[in-house]
Amino acid sequence: MCGTDGQVLVIKPSKPSSVSPAPDEPTDHHPSDTIINLDHGDPTMYESYWKVVGQKYTSITIPGFQSLSYFANKKNLCWFLEPKLEEEIKRLHKMVGNAIVENRHIVVGTGSSQLILAALYALSDPLNEPNPISVVSAAPYYSSYPEMTDFLRSGLFKWSGDARCFNKEGPYIEMVTYPNNPDGVIREPVVNRANGMLVHDLAYYWPQYTAITSPADHDIILFTVSKCTGHAGSRIGWALVRNENIARKMVKFIEVNTIGVSKEAQLRAANILETISLSCQRHKPRDLENFFECSQRLMAERWKKLREAVDNNELFYVPKFPIQFCNFTRDFTETYPAFAWLKCKEGMDCEKLLRGHKILTRSGRRFGSGAEYVRISMLSRDEEFDLFLQRLSAVGGDNN
Amino acid sequence: MCGTDGQVLVIKPSKPSSVSPAPDEPTDHHPSDTIINLDHGDPTMYESYWKVVGQKYTSITIPGFQSLSYFANKKNLCWFLEPKLEEEIKRLHKMVGNAIVENRHIVVGTGSSQLILAALYALSDPLNEPNPISVVSAAPYYSSYPEMTDFLRSGLFKWSGDARCFNKEGPYIEMVTYPNNPDGVIREPVVNRANGMLVHDLAYYWPQYTAITSPADHDIILFTVSKCTGHAGSRIGWALVRNENIARKMVKFIEVNTIGVSKEAQLRAANILETISLSCQRHKPRDLENFFECSQRLMAERWKKLREAVDNNELFYVPKFPIQFCNFTRDFTETYPAFAWLKCKEGMDCEKLLRGHKILTRSGRRFGSGAEYVRISMLSRDEEFDLFLQRLSAVGGDNN
Repeated sequence: MCGTDGQVLVIKPSKPSSVSPAPDEPTDHHPSDTIINLDHGDPTMYESYWKVVGQKYTSITIPGFQSLSYFANKKNLCWFLEPKLEEEIKRLHKMVGNAIVENRHIVVGTGSSQLILAALYALSDPLNEPNPISVVSAAPYYSSYPEMTDFLRSGLFKWSGDARCFNKEGPYIEMVTYPNNPDGVIREPVVNRANGMLVHDLAYYWPQYTAITSPADHDIILFTVSKCTGHAGSRIGWALVRNENIARKMVKFIEVNTIGVSKEAQLRAANILETISLSCQRHKPRDLENFFECSQRLMAERWKKLREAVDNNELFYVPKFPIQFCNFTRDFTETYPAFAWLKCKEGMDCEKLLRGHKILTRSGRRFGSGAEYVRISMLSRDEEFDLFLQRLSAVGGDNN
Repeated sequence: MCGTDGQVLVIKPSKPSSVSPAPDEPTDHHPSDTIINLDHGDPTMYESYWKVVGQKYTSITIPGFQSLSYFANKKNLCWFLEPKLEEEIKRLHKMVGNAIVENRHIVVGTGSSQLILAALYALSDPLNEPNPISVVSAAPYYSSYPEMTDFLRSGLFKWSGDARCFNKEGPYIEMVTYPNNPDGVIREPVVNRANGMLVHDLAYYWPQYTAITSPADHDIILFTVSKCTGHAGSRIGWALVRNENIARKMVKFIEVNTIGVSKEAQLRAANILETISLSCQRHKPRDLENFFECSQRLMAERWKKLREAVDNNELFYVPKFPIQFCNFTRDFTETYPAFAWLKCKEGMDCEKLLRGHKILTRSGRRFGSGAEYVRISMLSRDEEFDLFLQRLSAVGGDNN
């Protein structure tokens, strides 16, 4: 069933005159001149799973009088966090084994983007540090880190580029992403100085992308439903935070920035995470396929097809990954990153080359690397992915 | 029916093992030592209306496969804005007559807080202005403006205090709020210089709070469902923006800050706005009371009770408002602000006095005024409001 289209359900508000929201764009028309946009990591690949699962397990109904208040739980440090979401986050991490949740504060955010900013805000210390704290990450780094850090010209923090080239004195914040966006590598901190603070971005540390080798145990860990379940439109991320004061400052950031996080999105995310946990239980309902097994199989198939296309082509190269034992699946597995970090021959502008074939990707330059690299989303819908492979093969045909 | 409790519905995800989200805190237990928190403008007053309206008109069901994508409408300048929400925003403004929507760009935000920051970002011009642009508002101003503007120590904009005292050269941004938070006054810009830019915060320009005297027609106007419908937990606000480039920059801010706005919250807000529009139609369903009439009646009752309590008490004073003709209700009406701007006798610390009687309010100092003032939410649940009035009368009894 995995990767096939199921019944198409239409939203049903129980109002006679209601106008149904527009469904996502149709996906079955891709004439040869259509531009394929694989620049963003839009996780529409997961639609097929959720369509098959259907209303039975995942529909959520919210009556009009619910969640009017700004507050979700006044007794919680994170007063806008829905208790059910907190519960389902903990349950899922315990089941997957990808992060320690005991004695951690959970801070929910409007996607993990907001939590990155919240973490930078929380870790900066303007009373004791007159200059903005340096923020670094080893290249190739997530292309949004520099822009997020600098777009408001904050006096609290400042982007300082590739962590491997960082040579300033004083405190710094290093963003550590594993598996790394864009290249899928399992990362560790690279600066390793006493006055460093770490933010671990583990958006892709889920069984469909990589082996779960141990539960992550860091000071600040960020996750997002976008990459775990595919629900990018919900804008729900969460942070697991060891230190209470840091968690309080992150909550303060979100309070000033957006006065909390949408309750509807939190309730739905809780429902989706609950369904995933249910799908992974030994005595799960028969009609509910294991989400991670299904997603991993799909990722493995896509990577197999991509490697075949690249192997038949002298222009391109994609990285290889070690095989590791996954504690969750209890099997050996490769890493199947959400992005392909494609390399062209030295001196070529890979983004430009692919754009000429109507494939939009993100240039390696955006990630602190060279123009011979591009990042390509592996999470598009089936039709787009297949068309991408056809065109990639055609590029090779033109240029070989 | 207005202001009475209807049937209590419980969220019903259609999953066997689902854990229902915790409902809002119980409201019917207020022993004499309970602290009443009227510091925030938490609009729980509106719960009673939405409970009576019930599932028939306002429940929304979202299937698991919907809205996975980051995008809501790739063709729109605001690519994360749900088309149905855009439609319902326009419909409501046209019906109420409180803002011009023709030839305006609509930018949705995670509450209007995010849109305030987006507007400051969009209006700043770091290429031509080396120094942060001054942000001002006439005191008493919304207590969050200074904190929002300065919390990241942005090099783009900087809080410069009371607009009436502003005497710097160069460009500036003036926040104009009407009816004003905290004091309910209908405001106009006060600096009025050629190089000024205006952001109009019209969160309370709805018929339950004030007469709608003309459709607002400004460069940037901000609204929020929190104060219009009471759905503060959804975190949905919107901006009506005249200039395309400014709208694009606001969208860019939201892209970098949170990569869009929750789709679930947008779809629900659209549904709620649609219900309100339906309730105001001449040939509306019989069981759907006009939302604004009902809310205005409730606000008028509360203000009448508050004025009675204050009139019998030499300690306190609340402002009076002119009676104006409302184009929407086609009747003369007073202003019934969402907050009471209560004044104690000169030299008293009003916030401290009330805190001693277990009433939490926000001190006038937070709004750029004196400690003899406090802002008190008028939007609490009935039980809290009645208890507040009892205690307020008791304060007078102690101190007269």
